[in-house]
Amino acid sequence: MNRELFAAGERLVSPAYVRQGCEARRSHEHLMRLLLEKGKCPEDGWDESTLELFLHELAIMDSNNFLGNCGVGEREGRVASALVARRHYRFIHGIGRSGDISAVQPKAAGSSLLNKITNSLVLDIIKLAGVHTVTSCFVVPMATGMSLTLCFLTLRHRRPKAKYIIWPRIDQKSCFKSMITAGFEPVVIENILEGDELRTDLKAVEAKVQELGPDHVLCVHSTTSCFAPRVPDRLEELAVICANYGIPHIVNNAYGVQSSKCMHLIQQGARVGRVDAFVQSLDKNFMVPVGGAIIAGFNDSFIQEISKMYPGRASASPSLDVLITLLSLGSNGYKKLLKERKEMFSYLSSQLKKLSEAYNEKLLHTPHNPISLAMTLKTLDKHCSKAVTQLGSMLFTRQVSGARVVPLGSMQTVSGYTFRGFMSHTNNYPCAYLNAASAIGMKTQDVDLFIKRLDKCLKTVRKEQNKESDVSGVDNNDKTEDVDIEEMALKLDTVHLDTCQDSS
Amino acid sequence: MNRELFAAGERLVSPAYVRQGCEARRSHEHLMRLLLEKGKCPEDGWDESTLELFLHELAIMDSNNFLGNCGVGEREGRVASALVARRHYRFIHGIGRSGDISAVQPKAAGSSLLNKITNSLVLDIIKLAGVHTVTSCFVVPMATGMSLTLCFLTLRHRRPKAKYIIWPRIDQKSCFKSMITAGFEPVVIENILEGDELRTDLKAVEAKVQELGPDHVLCVHSTTSCFAPRVPDRLEELAVICANYGIPHIVNNAYGVQSSKCMHLIQQGARVGRVDAFVQSLDKNFMVPVGGAIIAGFNDSFIQEISKMYPGRASASPSLDVLITLLSLGSNGYKKLLKERKEMFSYLSSQLKKLSEAYNEKLLHTPHNPISLAMTLKTLDKHCSKAVTQLGSMLFTRQVSGARVVPLGSMQTVSGYTFRGFMSHTNNYPCAYLNAASAIGMKTQDVDLFIKRLDKCLKTVRKEQNKESDVSGVDNNDKTEDVDIEEMALKLDTVHLDTCQDSS
Amino acid sequence: MNRELFAAGERLVSPAYVRQGCEARRSHEHLMRLLLEKGKCPEDGWDESTLELFLHELAIMDSNNFLGNCGVGEREGRVASALVARRHYRFIHGIGRSGDISAVQPKAAGSSLLNKITNSLVLDIIKLAGVHTVTSCFVVPMATGMSLTLCFLTLRHRRPKAKYIIWPRIDQKSCFKSMITAGFEPVVIENILEGDELRTDLKAVEAKVQELGPDHVLCVHSTTSCFAPRVPDRLEELAVICANYGIPHIVNNAYGVQSSKCMHLIQQGARVGRVDAFVQSLDKNFMVPVGGAIIAGFNDSFIQEISKMYPGRASASPSLDVLITLLSLGSNGYKKLLKERKEMFSYLSSQLKKLSEAYNEKLLHTPHNPISLAMTLKTLDKHCSKAVTQLGSMLFTRQVSGARVVPLGSMQTVSGYTFRGFMSHTNNYPCAYLNAASAIGMKTQDVDLFIKRLDKCLKTVRKEQNKESDVSGVDNNDKTEDVDIEEMALKLDTVHLDTCQDSS
Amino acid sequence: MNRELFAAGERLVSPAYVRQGCEARRSHEHLMRLLLEKGKCPEDGWDESTLELFLHELAIMDSNNFLGNCGVGEREGRVASALVARRHYRFIHGIGRSGDISAVQPKAAGSSLLNKITNSLVLDIIKLAGVHTVTSCFVVPMATGMSLTLCFLTLRHRRPKAKYIIWPRIDQKSCFKSMITAGFEPVVIENILEGDELRTDLKAVEAKVQELGPDHVLCVHSTTSCFAPRVPDRLEELAVICANYGIPHIVNNAYGVQSSKCMHLIQQGARVGRVDAFVQSLDKNFMVPVGGAIIAGFNDSFIQEISKMYPGRASASPSLDVLITLLSLGSNGYKKLLKERKEMFSYLSSQLKKLSEAYNEKLLHTPHNPISLAMTLKTLDKHCSKAVTQLGSMLFTRQVSGARVVPLGSMQTVSGYTFRGFMSHTNNYPCAYLNAASAIGMKTQDVDLFIKRLDKCLKTVRKEQNKESDVSGVDNNDKTEDVDIEEMALKLDTVHLDTCQDSS
Repeated sequence: MNRELFAAGERLVSPAYVRQGCEARRSHEHLMRLLLEKGKCPEDGWDESTLELFLHELAIMDSNNFLGNCGVGEREGRVASALVARRHYRFIHGIGRSGDISAVQPKAAGSSLLNKITNSLVLDIIKLAGVHTVTSCFVVPMATGMSLTLCFLTLRHRRPKAKYIIWPRIDQKSCFKSMITAGFEPVVIENILEGDELRTDLKAVEAKVQELGPDHVLCVHSTTSCFAPRVPDRLEELAVICANYGIPHIVNNAYGVQSSKCMHLIQQGARVGRVDAFVQSLDKNFMVPVGGAIIAGFNDSFIQEISKMYPGRASASPSLDVLITLLSLGSNGYKKLLKERKEMFSYLSSQLKKLSEAYNEKLLHTPHNPISLAMTLKTLDKHCSKAVTQLGSMLFTRQVSGARVVPLGSMQTVSGYTFRGFMSHTNNYPCAYLNAASAIGMKTQDVDLFIKRLDKCLKTVRKEQNKESDVSGVDNNDKTEDVDIEEMALKLDTVHLDTCQDSS
Repeated sequence: MNRELFAAGERLVSPAYVRQGCEARRSHEHLMRLLLEKGKCPEDGWDESTLELFLHELAIMDSNNFLGNCGVGEREGRVASALVARRHYRFIHGIGRSGDISAVQPKAAGSSLLNKITNSLVLDIIKLAGVHTVTSCFVVPMATGMSLTLCFLTLRHRRPKAKYIIWPRIDQKSCFKSMITAGFEPVVIENILEGDELRTDLKAVEAKVQELGPDHVLCVHSTTSCFAPRVPDRLEELAVICANYGIPHIVNNAYGVQSSKCMHLIQQGARVGRVDAFVQSLDKNFMVPVGGAIIAGFNDSFIQEISKMYPGRASASPSLDVLITLLSLGSNGYKKLLKERKEMFSYLSSQLKKLSEAYNEKLLHTPHNPISLAMTLKTLDKHCSKAVTQLGSMLFTRQVSGARVVPLGSMQTVSGYTFRGFMSHTNNYPCAYLNAASAIGMKTQDVDLFIKRLDKCLKTVRKEQNKESDVSGVDNNDKTEDVDIEEMALKLDTVHLDTCQDSS
Repeated sequence: MNRELFAAGERLVSPAYVRQGCEARRSHEHLMRLLLEKGKCPEDGWDESTLELFLHELAIMDSNNFLGNCGVGEREGRVASALVARRHYRFIHGIGRSGDISAVQPKAAGSSLLNKITNSLVLDIIKLAGVHTVTSCFVVPMATGMSLTLCFLTLRHRRPKAKYIIWPRIDQKSCFKSMITAGFEPVVIENILEGDELRTDLKAVEAKVQELGPDHVLCVHSTTSCFAPRVPDRLEELAVICANYGIPHIVNNAYGVQSSKCMHLIQQGARVGRVDAFVQSLDKNFMVPVGGAIIAGFNDSFIQEISKMYPGRASASPSLDVLITLLSLGSNGYKKLLKERKEMFSYLSSQLKKLSEAYNEKLLHTPHNPISLAMTLKTLDKHCSKAVTQLGSMLFTRQVSGARVVPLGSMQTVSGYTFRGFMSHTNNYPCAYLNAASAIGMKTQDVDLFIKRLDKCLKTVRKEQNKESDVSGVDNNDKTEDVDIEEMALKLDTVHLDTCQDSS
Repeated sequence: MNRELFAAGERLVSPAYVRQGCEARRSHEHLMRLLLEKGKCPEDGWDESTLELFLHELAIMDSNNFLGNCGVGEREGRVASALVARRHYRFIHGIGRSGDISAVQPKAAGSSLLNKITNSLVLDIIKLAGVHTVTSCFVVPMATGMSLTLCFLTLRHRRPKAKYIIWPRIDQKSCFKSMITAGFEPVVIENILEGDELRTDLKAVEAKVQELGPDHVLCVHSTTSCFAPRVPDRLEELAVICANYGIPHIVNNAYGVQSSKCMHLIQQGARVGRVDAFVQSLDKNFMVPVGGAIIAGFNDSFIQEISKMYPGRASASPSLDVLITLLSLGSNGYKKLLKERKEMFSYLSSQLKKLSEAYNEKLLHTPHNPISLAMTLKTLDKHCSKAVTQLGSMLFTRQVSGARVVPLGSMQTVSGYTFRGFMSHTNNYPCAYLNAASAIGMKTQDVDLFIKRLDKCLKTVRKEQNKESDVSGVDNNDKTEDVDIEEMALKLDTVHLDTCQDSS
């Protein structure tokens, strides 16, 4: 409301009360102004009222919300469904222009502001989370993998001779595919086993660079966050190699923003060597729906070059989600989440240790992995490899989500490349194991339920094994199959499912 | 509610009334069942109540909404902000898996169903809109340009020798960038002038294919919907050339779903020759927010190959938008929108004709363009080319959005390629002109307001020209500048803006 | 956004675009200012964007939404559930103060404005609907019946000797109860049959006044909208009698705002005689949820006296509903609804006439009733009175809502008073009949479906009657029972219900 | 979804995943069934997903949401505005029937269930809060005062000779008005001072009963929750007097549900004597918007009699709010709120004690009041009574809401009755004071901010007093004025307000 409106209001109700209301509005406006001027995440989260007012204010700056607008173009932000308009707070024009996903749209000043502010907030949070010298970033409404692809495609123009990407192995399909989709040949560097941990083989990396010739290498593609017993790559050393040979370095920091260790690695890498861009998932780090990533780096012009590679306007939806989330949480709220996650990691770790020992298994010693844990499943696997996948399936049907069982020796072909020991990041890990992670937003209750259910499942599997112990040891050949563990698991465990038949 | 719930309800209120309610529920369920079984867009739109019930039913099938779920993975669909969860109807897991954007997610049966159903509905609508023999399609949460890039990247694996993409010129940045980003060299085929229309130079295309050698050509990249006086490419003939030389054919059908003519061209192309994939925008054809595209084709395995190129999970937001929209409209509602658009095109055409004649201009004769119209601005341009851009600016500040003025001879460099006469799809179009389009969702009121405001602006510009007529004719060198018309326009027209200073 | 905010925005995106947005905001503000200054319903409805902005602006003027508020009272507008806060747009303090439901609340300037504006808009609409000289009104979150009670309670203080309320009979429980609850003795004036119509017996009214003595009469309580064959009371003549004897006159105008005839009667009554207050339902006239009424009149101080009788603060919910509705519709939208209702009345009338004749029945000739129609059920009733109630039940289970069948001679006791021929407004109406009404918001499709289903039901009942014709004629004694027709009907018709058993 | 729907889903995505979803649905249904069967507040709050599903399920049982409904009545639940429909979750028919606000509506099985369940939950909570033997209650969408009026109107029919209501004085307008509106004459019993506390004068009550004659007394109207230094009435003793003389006893328990002490008094009263009904506010006890009350009692038939006095259907909005709130909180959540309130009371008490001593004032010793506290303002009042009201005004403009200053000797006339010392519950309280309360939902931050601001204001007032000390002592006559303290306060304090002038 402006001055005239308040004046009109004063004629209807007592001026003193209207003035109180007017004062109150100013305190909302004060928060908005600070945000626009500083571009930083507020310390304390905003309440819904300020947040929605802010979004409303931005939205009415877009031409599709002009009361007197007449549209004669092919893209006018018209919306057929009121439900759809509402769920997007009437931001319809998306972000960016055909030339650049970070560009300002003449038709949509509000959406453009939303985009700028979101990128600015996210940059602030990345600094806060540990990468203090980051200079530039942008939210892109694509998966982490596709965002990596975009980085590789951008590098192609800088390095016309390059064909290869050097990639310390991590068994996650989309990382691998990101290189294939971009049209490059991944050069897989096998990890080395140090204690229980799988770590980067730096010598093999350097040898490969020399073998292929630096000009033929598009970049080194390293990874921070990963499933134990693999641990984050030796980023500092890789960054130094890249600097020495003049090779770009792209870091897959998928869910690493939530871990000060991962962020520290990137910061150190950039300090002592070369990190060109690091890419992270929005959903995994900021508790928003799947669909966006952040591409960040230390060189404005390179990051801008990437943003100019996206041809066309893009969905504002992931930007809107992260904006709402960060303004609601405030930096204090986000820091609190980070702190809780760390605590939950310790708790999960100690609980899983206890349980594993009770079953004569052990919690793998992987101190360099700040998020994921692994507990051996040796005793299960001894008799029959099916027991391992069956455990996975049982956990799934008991509504434990995210726990992964990794049997020995499964083989998988991805885009024509065959990986032995797929899921374990190495050809022959010494034993089968089970993964659990402490990710942002996890609660004590998640840990407790998980431990309880895992305990029950292990008991059940054991019992069955004892029964079948004479018949076992047969199907070792299935270890070489190309399997999708989760799917296979489901086929095995049909317990419980039939109850569903009587439902509703 | 299931039988037990209704029984419990009957104890509280009269059984007869509860049974009525139970009957009523069945009619909602009947609609949902039809949808799931047939996978077709319902003829009559659903009301909000059915729609929201359906979305709710799907959402509670996702693990993040399980009441007893415990999550120990790195991606558990946790959401920090209730506002965000709500606006996504609690669909958090996105669509697809790391391997394939069309794949089913074990953790998210509801989101997976949503994805399948949306793709099925969209396929149904594409058939209804004129491409009767389409067999496969999927929604991807990326711009049309980026989706084209994905198609090109997929083809790379099939055609390792190919370096070039043959592209009948269309002056729209993201089409051009889509090829650059994919790492290919666009081979621009200039259009030829037939009457007022700019049409595909088929001979030049074929000559180029022969010159480069079919194996070195990744594909022909043609366009349907475009700004007049360019008209849709001669798709049938291009499709035949592609078939003859064994070259893939990718069609940019950006906003062509709304035009039976564009859809007919694709259908014919596929019938007589070769169309590998056609890509269309979600927002421009279905009145949803910017952010998604549909990749469609006639060969299941090729379309599936494209869907498998997307590395990672993706935003479900565009799919959700189009699902809500199509279920709300029903196929009858969508057909009605198509019919109204056609009528509005005739109306806009006749009004613009009248107006242009009143100003000694003419409406360009472009019968092959079913969406966009162009009116000459000869008299304006005669004195001073600035007048043309000023007109654009004046329209913009008067809340006419989407009208484009195209001055003579502007030059623009896109990704290192320089285009003469940029925006006009040819090096030297005979005159400056103004574009207006009749896009889906346009209303009579839009046309009337546009004509009224254009009339006023033309009057004003004329008046000013008469005053300045002695001083003019100076700045012809400006024509060779690299300009962004919209932005330039804004700098010129500062009329009106100052009023803003007194605001709020 | 204020000037400073826009300035901050200009630093992030182009000033020219921000200024466009700023201009656009002004057009929303312009509408709000007009509303606050004039207090009239805008001619054209507001779009959701303006409406929600307005509600948001008001809500942040309430102390519960102050960012820095600290509450140490017993009623601080705290809300436990975010869902609840949201659905009330964060208006928590209700309307009015302990002393007066129309009073301004110091803690809640926004809610107070909302209340004032709503009452002002509603007054405007009452004028527009035909009572041009109304001077004062307020929305009260109570049923029409309870609102009538409040009027009677107010009059008690003015007329300490009065014990009776003179009430031309209308068979609707809550009208009757409104008097009982207020503690007065209703004096029922039976209607007289003129042709098919039941009309006010003016002589009986005047005789009763004389018999009881004017001072002992609290008021005359008349009715406009009612079920045919009763027609609106002869308001003009009643108003004259009231004026002559100095007796207050309260009009139950339940759903009469939608009919120009009903409104005209009130206007005329006030012109030639005395109308102290007229009370109307919000839901029945404005298509909002059940829960509110409007108390209106021609004398500010009397209406204010009523508003001061409500002890305590009250729900703002009905006011908010009608405010949203009227701002969305605009006066033009509301007028359109009134016009369509009238047309639908003609259509329903003609269709029902045709159908009734096909079954040897007739549409009762009730030209004074502008909303409700009645069709005889003579042939049904001839054999067996159960057939009539069975028809009602069949319609109910076939999802025809609101159709009422009125059998002959049912008896009902309400608060100790026994009514013969209950539901028919008279002791002995010549025949059984069925009612249908054309109320605001009715669609052609409602009429068509109704006629179709009624046709089917009549056919079925006839067929059954023919079968049973030898056994019939037995249960005439049930005519004297005390029945709730709808409930009885349900017990009879169990056809269809069993299908429900198999449902989910 | 029912079995057929899940089957259809299984054809689209993996059956195993669909079955997981189906299982998950059952857990939501399980909660709903428990609720319907037991009618008790769940211990743990429901999450939004279950809650909205439940509301949706209920809503589609109402005829206005039937897909095939055709309405030919005058009240068909049509809604003009989609915003309005949505905010009511499509419950449009309200609650109750013309005869009874607790009755079931044939047209609206869902709304009827909602009503029944809400009343059942609320009954459960009243028991949990301390009135274990309550047997019946219902939510009514009216203020506490109007609900008391309804109780009195009901009693009128039982006690035709009664004219008086005996009422131990409490200075709150709507309590007083509730009797006036019902048409009875309040007989005010002055409180007696015991230490700092104002308590019920039992002898005066009994004497008055004898003087008027029990048959002429409609009821005793007592109060629990109130502002200190008044304390809850001696309910046990009053209940015994009522029992002895056969007089009904109605208790105003406005915000007493939140206090175990108030609830205990009612329970004891009912055990040893007579309590016919007790009435409490929804908003003050359950943190919902203003607008509803609960009428509860120990005799089903009497409570039902009251519910049958409400003529007409009523708003379901307050019922819906409290239903959502209680299901969200669960009984554990509500208990937690009660516990926190108690703790906050201790905290506020100790902080206020400290502050008062620092200013040579004292915290009044009122151990029987469990919610409200009072701190003397003797030193302020000594010089000039204006200082007291100015303090109130200063607190108000500093966004302290709910703090009340009570100057000496103000006089107020309510409905013709004049109260000396209005606001202080007695003619001559020894000193001026300030009230603050610890109500449900209060936070530590509220207390801290309050204490800080009060400290500041006291400092400022003192300073001004010292300046003016020579001029003071003039306007003692003002003490006898009829004032609305809050309003007066506002007129005095114009500090701060002018800053508003520069605002947007």
